[in-house]
Amino acid sequence: MKQEIKRRISLLRSFMKEEGVSAFITPSTDPHSGEYTPEHWESRKWISGFTGSAGTAVITSDKGGVWTDSRFFLQAEDQLKDTGLILFKDRLPDTLSIPEWLGSVLQPGDKVGIDGWVNTTAEAEALAKELHAFGLELKVVNDPYEKLWTDRPSIPVNPIFILPVEFTGKTVAEKLQEIRKRIAQHQADGVLISALDEIAWTLNLRGNDVHCNPVFVSYLLITHNKVTLYITPQKLTAEVQDYLKTNGIETKPYDDVVCDLGNYLEKSIQMSDNTNYFLYTTMRPDVRIIRTASPVSFLKAVKNETEIRGFRNAMHRDGIAMVRFLRWIKEAVKSGKETEMSVDEKLYGFRATHPYFKGISFDTIAGYQEHGAIVHYEATQESASTLKPDGLLLLDSGAQYLDGTTDITRTIVLGPLTEAQKKDYTLVLKGFINLSMAVFPHGTCGTQLDILARQAMWKEGINYGHGTGHGVGHFLNVHEGPHQIRMNHVPAMMLPGMTITNEPGIYKAGEYGIRHENTMIVTEAIKTEFGPFYRLDPLTLCPIDKEGIIESMLSPEEKKWFNDYHTRVYNELAPDLTPEEQEWLKAATTAI
Amino acid sequence: MKQEIKRRISLLRSFMKEEGVSAFITPSTDPHSGEYTPEHWESRKWISGFTGSAGTAVITSDKGGVWTDSRFFLQAEDQLKDTGLILFKDRLPDTLSIPEWLGSVLQPGDKVGIDGWVNTTAEAEALAKELHAFGLELKVVNDPYEKLWTDRPSIPVNPIFILPVEFTGKTVAEKLQEIRKRIAQHQADGVLISALDEIAWTLNLRGNDVHCNPVFVSYLLITHNKVTLYITPQKLTAEVQDYLKTNGIETKPYDDVVCDLGNYLEKSIQMSDNTNYFLYTTMRPDVRIIRTASPVSFLKAVKNETEIRGFRNAMHRDGIAMVRFLRWIKEAVKSGKETEMSVDEKLYGFRATHPYFKGISFDTIAGYQEHGAIVHYEATQESASTLKPDGLLLLDSGAQYLDGTTDITRTIVLGPLTEAQKKDYTLVLKGFINLSMAVFPHGTCGTQLDILARQAMWKEGINYGHGTGHGVGHFLNVHEGPHQIRMNHVPAMMLPGMTITNEPGIYKAGEYGIRHENTMIVTEAIKTEFGPFYRLDPLTLCPIDKEGIIESMLSPEEKKWFNDYHTRVYNELAPDLTPEEQEWLKAATTAI
Repeated sequence: MKQEIKRRISLLRSFMKEEGVSAFITPSTDPHSGEYTPEHWESRKWISGFTGSAGTAVITSDKGGVWTDSRFFLQAEDQLKDTGLILFKDRLPDTLSIPEWLGSVLQPGDKVGIDGWVNTTAEAEALAKELHAFGLELKVVNDPYEKLWTDRPSIPVNPIFILPVEFTGKTVAEKLQEIRKRIAQHQADGVLISALDEIAWTLNLRGNDVHCNPVFVSYLLITHNKVTLYITPQKLTAEVQDYLKTNGIETKPYDDVVCDLGNYLEKSIQMSDNTNYFLYTTMRPDVRIIRTASPVSFLKAVKNETEIRGFRNAMHRDGIAMVRFLRWIKEAVKSGKETEMSVDEKLYGFRATHPYFKGISFDTIAGYQEHGAIVHYEATQESASTLKPDGLLLLDSGAQYLDGTTDITRTIVLGPLTEAQKKDYTLVLKGFINLSMAVFPHGTCGTQLDILARQAMWKEGINYGHGTGHGVGHFLNVHEGPHQIRMNHVPAMMLPGMTITNEPGIYKAGEYGIRHENTMIVTEAIKTEFGPFYRLDPLTLCPIDKEGIIESMLSPEEKKWFNDYHTRVYNELAPDLTPEEQEWLKAATTAI
Repeated sequence: MKQEIKRRISLLRSFMKEEGVSAFITPSTDPHSGEYTPEHWESRKWISGFTGSAGTAVITSDKGGVWTDSRFFLQAEDQLKDTGLILFKDRLPDTLSIPEWLGSVLQPGDKVGIDGWVNTTAEAEALAKELHAFGLELKVVNDPYEKLWTDRPSIPVNPIFILPVEFTGKTVAEKLQEIRKRIAQHQADGVLISALDEIAWTLNLRGNDVHCNPVFVSYLLITHNKVTLYITPQKLTAEVQDYLKTNGIETKPYDDVVCDLGNYLEKSIQMSDNTNYFLYTTMRPDVRIIRTASPVSFLKAVKNETEIRGFRNAMHRDGIAMVRFLRWIKEAVKSGKETEMSVDEKLYGFRATHPYFKGISFDTIAGYQEHGAIVHYEATQESASTLKPDGLLLLDSGAQYLDGTTDITRTIVLGPLTEAQKKDYTLVLKGFINLSMAVFPHGTCGTQLDILARQAMWKEGINYGHGTGHGVGHFLNVHEGPHQIRMNHVPAMMLPGMTITNEPGIYKAGEYGIRHENTMIVTEAIKTEFGPFYRLDPLTLCPIDKEGIIESMLSPEEKKWFNDYHTRVYNELAPDLTPEEQEWLKAATTAI
């Protein structure tokens, strides 16, 4: 394999020579800048042999490197050995950035190539600016892998299907009207939608092209009088073709988007900064490009009543599955036969019984003890620990249902805990509860709320390196914006109807990881002379293991929230459980 | 007076005709964008007759208006009557912005004039962009008031004085070295400093040109080998002249800055967005202008050990004055002879006894009952209420001492309170305490901390419209950045050595206002594997009136903080009090 990687790199170097560039950058994204990339666009894996999900390969005429973050240091070191590629450890203070490194190995005036398709407009522009500071020039070239990667997988062509209005709550016509209203507010004549979840939401269609995300590879161009879906025709069943026709949506082959944008007849177009750079540069100079967030990003984030009802039903169903699973696992680990992988399969089984179940919403993180401290841990046959009736299992999982997407983390007490584990367990719980109890006025963004989840652990000198909350799509991507709760500034307001997770954690490397996570929805709390105030209502219905708690660390209000939540979990789930399950849940939710 | 205003406006219209502009905008700022404007630049007051401290006048060939905020609606309405000027109520949803209004009354292609001296670069550019959206063009013209305002006060020429290194902790040479290091980091050959407090800090000089701010009108140009102070020569005593010479600082007349910038010989210059637009446009096009925050803004904000020691001494002294005042006022109001103005004079007297006292740091806000709800209330002979042994007096005041600046608010319980008053008093106190108890990691900005001061009242549907905290200068401006604690995003990090106020409030229009305010300093709390964590240590030493508190609303931790703070106040102040004062303070600080 290492020899094969060297061969591939030398092919790329020939291509670079033809194109007149001294370096070529291969990121791990695709033209739609999704979180999961279809195999067709996994060219960074192909060129470098490094198979982690995040990383960027940079090749010059005689050097090369891969930039990746701490999750993948060990894996990358192993996979890059003897390939001639250097590992650059991203986000460490002494690591050079890509432009800094290129500045140090290239000559002023040299050109650095990228494939415009797999870089967003914002990224490409930022890169050009940074390279410029080192006297280097960015050059957009053709996708080299189209020619070099001879057994490249094709762009997925899985059939798509209609999500009926009883699930979506709004027809395509209604959604198009809302989008057009927003385009007009920006004085734009049209908008190009390239994010796959936005296209799926707009058209009330779903697909199977991307791992965990029920979306389909396509582009959507909406103008004041026309809607065109650019998609490989095989994906359209007769039913979907009829549906699109009825809704006045024209379909064209996927690649036609290039030509159509080049011949765009309107005066202006709205494009988000996340549009790929190739399409952005395809526009004629006389077309005014209005670069604002896609109108769909916001519309999709604010759930309508049907979607909210669907979410509640999905969470109810998911809660039942979780209760059955929790009741089972506490006993099962005593056998010494269960592993991080087997329990994930068990949970899958509990969820999969429902006809609405459409798979998992992300790769399960089942991290026992020290594995729990690895934030994006995914157990493999080789790595999977055997579970014992001792310590903590961090379990972060979620499902896609036709009526909603779930995302839940519970840290399960499998047996005796150390005092340190209990203290950290309770600190995370305090943060989780304090954010759950938040009340905030209209206009508040997630940056303002974040400290509620962290203040208790900050007082002990502890922090976590990930965000506190993200939006969750409605039978769509489990991670969606524009709002988030995190330490960095995210200006998007938290508005009623938005879903948001609440997932603080503490990770002790080599020891254990703890995270508690509910998905919640923003609702109105109170309206006063100071305007409307909002609160966060839990959607997730599942007990939180009481055995990890040091009760004296909780304030009376925190205890009250916890007990009230557990009462609600019991009252809502019990009617659909067997008497034995009811009994277990009763015990799991009695007041502390 | 109304006739006189009409005459002035017609003079301005003749000027506008000569200059070829269809409108002229007069803001209330000066070329150094300070908080308080020397009379010389109060042209908005002169042209409109409206004397409030904030507002913008816009005159067209046949119309005119003044934009101001809710603090001044009544005053402006009265003062603008019969002048032909319309009052535009700023920040109300239906009020047109200045560009919107101009767009509605002018013709596309029309020019809108401003005086580049009294608009910052950022403001002028934003205005140009907004006007452009209405087809209007911004035109920078000469200052019309130079000719029209015949009895215009001159630019202040008060003598300046040296602040010795035993107060500043760093010599001018050391400060210049730090500034030059930061300029070099931005690849700049020089920097223009136009903020008056930054100039005073850099040169260890103070002045008397501006109300409450011990600064002097000037510009400072620093390059790698030269420092030039642009200042009216009369202001320099022989001693200061010697001092500047010794430190290698050249002086030139104030107006020479224009010529010198026009002939700037270096390749690049750093200028903040707050530099006035005239000077910005004075630069030759071949000089690279690096627009970043002034390096002094950050250096000044992080106090050195000498400054911190000075602050602590100043706060001790100020606390003694406050204790004497509080002990006095509780008895004095029973006479029925004290007013909002008389008590301010009394407090001034307690502070003025110290030789380091150099005046107040801002206009005292002494608001009794309903006046307390007016956020920037300033009592006048006409408005001043007589104090009674009943209800609440909000008292926000501060002093300038040679070794530090103070800013403190106490809400004093003069007599019986309603339950609503007590509840609000305690909600504000909860916010105040929760922010006081904050612990946060390196990298945290004020936007993240703000909710700690508001969460308790938000849960009751209450909010306040001002920021929660601002930096305080060291014997300089009482309001300084770059860091702040507020709902809006302010990216500047909170770093050890920074001063910051903590001042949540509740205002019930027509009834009462409550605010508790300490000035605090950021200090290291703990250093762990997650990096350094910081906390906020109170600098202010003064009891908080216990009589307003509903004790059952405070958590045990909140009570503990409150009692610990009171113990510290007693222990630190008592040694310098008389036995009678000690006794009073003892009672005021016993644990709740």
